[in-house]
Amino acid sequence: MINSRQRTVFIVSESTGITAETMAHSLLSQFPHLEFTYHQRSFVDTEEKAHELAKEIYEVGESQGFRPLVFATMPETNINDILASANCHYYEIFESFLDKIGHDLHTEPTRESGLSHGMINHKTYDARIDALNFTLKHDDAMVLKTIGESDIIIIGVSRSGKTPTSLYLALKFGIKVANYPITEDDFEKNELPQVLLDNKHKIFATSIKAKRLMQIREKRIPNSEYSSLKTCKAEIAKANKLYKKYGFVPMDVTKRSIEELAAQIIKTFKGKQDITLTPSTDI
Amino acid sequence: MINSRQRTVFIVSESTGITAETMAHSLLSQFPHLEFTYHQRSFVDTEEKAHELAKEIYEVGESQGFRPLVFATMPETNINDILASANCHYYEIFESFLDKIGHDLHTEPTRESGLSHGMINHKTYDARIDALNFTLKHDDAMVLKTIGESDIIIIGVSRSGKTPTSLYLALKFGIKVANYPITEDDFEKNELPQVLLDNKHKIFATSIKAKRLMQIREKRIPNSEYSSLKTCKAEIAKANKLYKKYGFVPMDVTKRSIEELAAQIIKTFKGKQDITLTPSTDI
Repeated sequence: MINSRQRTVFIVSESTGITAETMAHSLLSQFPHLEFTYHQRSFVDTEEKAHELAKEIYEVGESQGFRPLVFATMPETNINDILASANCHYYEIFESFLDKIGHDLHTEPTRESGLSHGMINHKTYDARIDALNFTLKHDDAMVLKTIGESDIIIIGVSRSGKTPTSLYLALKFGIKVANYPITEDDFEKNELPQVLLDNKHKIFATSIKAKRLMQIREKRIPNSEYSSLKTCKAEIAKANKLYKKYGFVPMDVTKRSIEELAAQIIKTFKGKQDITLTPSTDI
Repeated sequence: MINSRQRTVFIVSESTGITAETMAHSLLSQFPHLEFTYHQRSFVDTEEKAHELAKEIYEVGESQGFRPLVFATMPETNINDILASANCHYYEIFESFLDKIGHDLHTEPTRESGLSHGMINHKTYDARIDALNFTLKHDDAMVLKTIGESDIIIIGVSRSGKTPTSLYLALKFGIKVANYPITEDDFEKNELPQVLLDNKHKIFATSIKAKRLMQIREKRIPNSEYSSLKTCKAEIAKANKLYKKYGFVPMDVTKRSIEELAAQIIKTFKGKQDITLTPSTDI
């Protein structure tokens, strides 16, 4: 048995289930008093698989005393009907919108599955992979010579989240990102390398609270000079001094997730110049 | 002016807009005869910003002769009302589901924004970043000693998409992934290293069509022995021989996107053992 605050959620799709998963998590985050356990069931693309899953849903409901929640993207009507009649709270998240959009656009939806996250177009897909390779190569100032080919350059002190944010931007949007950790050498000169200054308009500066930085560094090299609160504080202060010199307004990353940072970075740069986005959901 | 097949789409959110973007792309992929241009408007969290955006939407509609499509996640009623009354086709994708789920669960949604993609929980967030660091460290067989700590090991010939898939799994789901390119040395011995065989149950083998592999390698090192169709064919044949020896059933990655591969890998491993997922949308 489970307790009365727990609920089981099935994410069901004929394809990857990314859309259903995103919607389910977003919607259920609005019910923080309940605890949800998620089960992903991708590629449910035959009636046989649907019947099997309906049986599983029924059994979970029986054993737990609560009907599971099912979030599905099911453009195919027959499979949808099988799942909708299972003993669950069923939310098909496509249908009502598809009808309305089709009506508004005076055209019929194709009702094929796998269109949104499959490899529909090799060219845009390859552009995204190229962006990822560029980003990996230009991680952590590994290569500076070709940094001018990047769309965005993220700078900040070591371990302030530059790498994850760079990789996310590349993987999800096909943006070429370089990142540069500001080091002792830069602090001593109170200057950034010329190759960075030549690309000043692409720079996105980050800052972080010293306590959080210490916490992250402690996990990497415990009880070290590097991870001490004193070092963290000093580096952050020196980075801020550099930012001021060049007129960068840093963004505090302390309480921001990769996704929030990425959204903010795109918003900032779209205002300044046109980054060509190759969203993953377009391929 | 735009032509009659073109439409402008605004993705609007009080927060990152990830959910609205995912839904918009998925839904509109069902209308392949039309061309959509996307504009992301994240962090629209005041009535003032909403009025500004409504004005922009109006102007775009006037100049193009077609009302823009607006996809929004707007739990906050006042801002929602401003946008809904703009001159557009408006799709608020939360409200109808929130009401229904609230009714089904006998509880009220909080209607706060930024709950689904913000940094709500440092612990699960850090776990995801740890997984990414592990995956970067264990990319391309760079470290084999600690490969046993991985959740999944992806193997395949060079340039068959192992790295992007590994990074995606880490970033999105917090899974620790190692990847191993099968090289000449392994082919000569017709054997995989012992440290891999000790973790055989974690291995996910990939295959790829020779022509596609050639195309990818050509971009990296053009006109080389490495990228020739002959080499690609030979390596794939030898990899398949190795897979057969160990009983691996490879997945063909030729026509699969990172997202599809990741979904398939998770599906496969959930059947074998329990991977603990830390989905990005949970943080």
